[in-house]
Amino acid sequence: MGMIVQKFGGSSVKNADLIHRAARRAIRAKIDGHQVVVVVSAMGDYTDQLVDLANQITDRPNRREMDQLLSTGEQISIALMAMAIHHAGHDAISLTGGQIGLKTYGAFGRARIREITQKTRMLQLLSEGNIVIVAGFQGVDESANVTTLGRGGSDTTAVALAAALGADTCEIYTDVDGIYTADPRIVPEARKLPFIYYDEMLELASLGAQVMHSRSIELGKNYGVTIHVRSSYTDAKGTDIVKEASDLQQVIVRGAALKKDLGRVEITGVPNRPGLASDIFKRVAEQGVIVDDIIQVIHEGGKTADISFTIDSADKRDADAVCSTFAKDTPGVAIKIREGIAKISVVGVGMRTHTGVASRMFEALHKANINIENISTSEIVISVLVKADDAPAALRAVHATFELAVETPEQIAPMS
Amino acid sequence: MGMIVQKFGGSSVKNADLIHRAARRAIRAKIDGHQVVVVVSAMGDYTDQLVDLANQITDRPNRREMDQLLSTGEQISIALMAMAIHHAGHDAISLTGGQIGLKTYGAFGRARIREITQKTRMLQLLSEGNIVIVAGFQGVDESANVTTLGRGGSDTTAVALAAALGADTCEIYTDVDGIYTADPRIVPEARKLPFIYYDEMLELASLGAQVMHSRSIELGKNYGVTIHVRSSYTDAKGTDIVKEASDLQQVIVRGAALKKDLGRVEITGVPNRPGLASDIFKRVAEQGVIVDDIIQVIHEGGKTADISFTIDSADKRDADAVCSTFAKDTPGVAIKIREGIAKISVVGVGMRTHTGVASRMFEALHKANINIENISTSEIVISVLVKADDAPAALRAVHATFELAVETPEQIAPMS
Repeated sequence: MGMIVQKFGGSSVKNADLIHRAARRAIRAKIDGHQVVVVVSAMGDYTDQLVDLANQITDRPNRREMDQLLSTGEQISIALMAMAIHHAGHDAISLTGGQIGLKTYGAFGRARIREITQKTRMLQLLSEGNIVIVAGFQGVDESANVTTLGRGGSDTTAVALAAALGADTCEIYTDVDGIYTADPRIVPEARKLPFIYYDEMLELASLGAQVMHSRSIELGKNYGVTIHVRSSYTDAKGTDIVKEASDLQQVIVRGAALKKDLGRVEITGVPNRPGLASDIFKRVAEQGVIVDDIIQVIHEGGKTADISFTIDSADKRDADAVCSTFAKDTPGVAIKIREGIAKISVVGVGMRTHTGVASRMFEALHKANINIENISTSEIVISVLVKADDAPAALRAVHATFELAVETPEQIAPMS
Repeated sequence: MGMIVQKFGGSSVKNADLIHRAARRAIRAKIDGHQVVVVVSAMGDYTDQLVDLANQITDRPNRREMDQLLSTGEQISIALMAMAIHHAGHDAISLTGGQIGLKTYGAFGRARIREITQKTRMLQLLSEGNIVIVAGFQGVDESANVTTLGRGGSDTTAVALAAALGADTCEIYTDVDGIYTADPRIVPEARKLPFIYYDEMLELASLGAQVMHSRSIELGKNYGVTIHVRSSYTDAKGTDIVKEASDLQQVIVRGAALKKDLGRVEITGVPNRPGLASDIFKRVAEQGVIVDDIIQVIHEGGKTADISFTIDSADKRDADAVCSTFAKDTPGVAIKIREGIAKISVVGVGMRTHTGVASRMFEALHKANINIENISTSEIVISVLVKADDAPAALRAVHATFELAVETPEQIAPMS
């Protein structure tokens, strides 16, 4: 039956009952004949509690010590999970990131996985009949310092382990029951997808779908690990994130996403001199502000240009500060930041080979009386900026026009 | 100025304010020119909270997993302590038991230290100007499993580190300000001892003084580490636990102790056959009941004997069960367990060379109208059993008769 990796997020292990429930799921997989590796996150909001503790000590905690602190959250979860499995009469052993030899490089707080050295030990423990419980989110660097992998880190651990151990599937148990064609809280008729391709999921993740973090999907893609996203509360099948197949009957639009809380920085009267635009973006990048959808319009005569770009509203203050400084340094330049912007996107690998998607999208929005502020496209994505107030209606209009609620046969499983 | 190891117990790091206070103490030692190693326990009752968590999962937690769980308590403390030192503008780095290479052997939950392998790294970190913060109570075994050292484990870590690194002193910061001639809550005139010898402290620890655990004192004795027990709340000098000096003017009685909550098992009518007595004690030991002060009285004619021994009241039920079974198996034998017993002891290495201590003690108790139930002596200890109700008065009488409240010149510092 092969090997399976099951990952339980913080909401799936937030109390003793849920830990027992997760333990039963792991045991069921073992009884079904699988070798089972379980990856767990810290319980519920425990990581936040640790951050609070650090903030009681200092307003600028050292990043190495923060990782030393935060890694205890997952260590608690693995010990309790192993106890829960023992309680049910099965063998289990918990291992920290250091104990599986999950070696990382890069900065504390957002380290990246270099390798997993203790594969042989883990395979030995599995072959002895243990369910192996691994702490997500953490590793050790080359000096044996504890490191953490940043947002979505436990998913990354799970997929990396599945790749390293050659598991058939990596199951991600979470508080949603799969990937939907759109956020069901906004689009009630949204449909759970039986599967989605890595590239589609990567785009959706960056466009507002918060189910999975990009790094774990990239890892799954690079190592061909099938990721199954499903609910920890039900037995319903979730969504497989899988390798792209060369379908003849390709689905054109897989899903639609809404990214809220965006702002638009508009810089007017920028002298059209080489290096000035790059100077702006260098300053913005130094502040850690992430920039998207850059548009530069050069005015008649070519003397000045207007530059605009999208930012997260959370970055508004930083962006304002740095752009205002730029304006002060550069005569004639004016700055305006508009908030209340949202981005609606459709994603599908079928767009590579199909045309007419953009016009169909624009027509739907036009019919819904929604004004489009900006358009951007990439190989498998079309995005438009709209006013935040229009965004829910826009998402519903787009979802309807591409008939995403309808499950066609080619959407049930990838053909290859 | 050399190196100093400072150990802060759970009550000394139970909140952010106290962590900052402990950090300031370490920084002061560093500013005074010492290299400083800090060993910390888990915050306040955090270990109890973790035990509660485990008990929510199962009533019989696996010992390995319990160690995996409990070790997180000290890991949290070291990270926060390092942050507090950084906050005050000094360099510090936290290290877990695994990171200092504290290798253990023996059972989970009460592992023993084999060696500390990362001495070179620690000395390097110290020479670079860091205060090195080490998690007490924990280590790793030869298979890289996390282990804990059991009761008093952080003290053991601190003394072991002082020995391994060649520190001059190991300071134990706690919620009492030193070792007293007797428990000051019972004997108001009890006096804080400037120093005490290892062997005296070892006896007092086993006779009811709860300040230090035996294992760390043994370690200090074996490696000649001066242990300084002092308050984390004041700057007052505490008590040095030191190597025995060959004083001419030896102090005869260093201190007195009271051990409460004892019971006395009395087994009558035991046939005087070889092996029967050892059978009783074998059965009792198998139940994990610790036995003390065994008396066997053989009756006239030599046909039967009465056997009695002291137990902790906490073990009463286990002792009762096993002795009752013995009585059932052995015709003529009867069992009685009396509770409400206490033991009063006086301790001093001077007893090795002085006589008359016992008679002086008995006389004092007699004058105080206290009945002595049993007497036991060893090289540097004389103990009597009394009724628990008489125990406080007995301790005061003994303390007074040996004039323990009076500080004589030879008690200020060991002569050698």
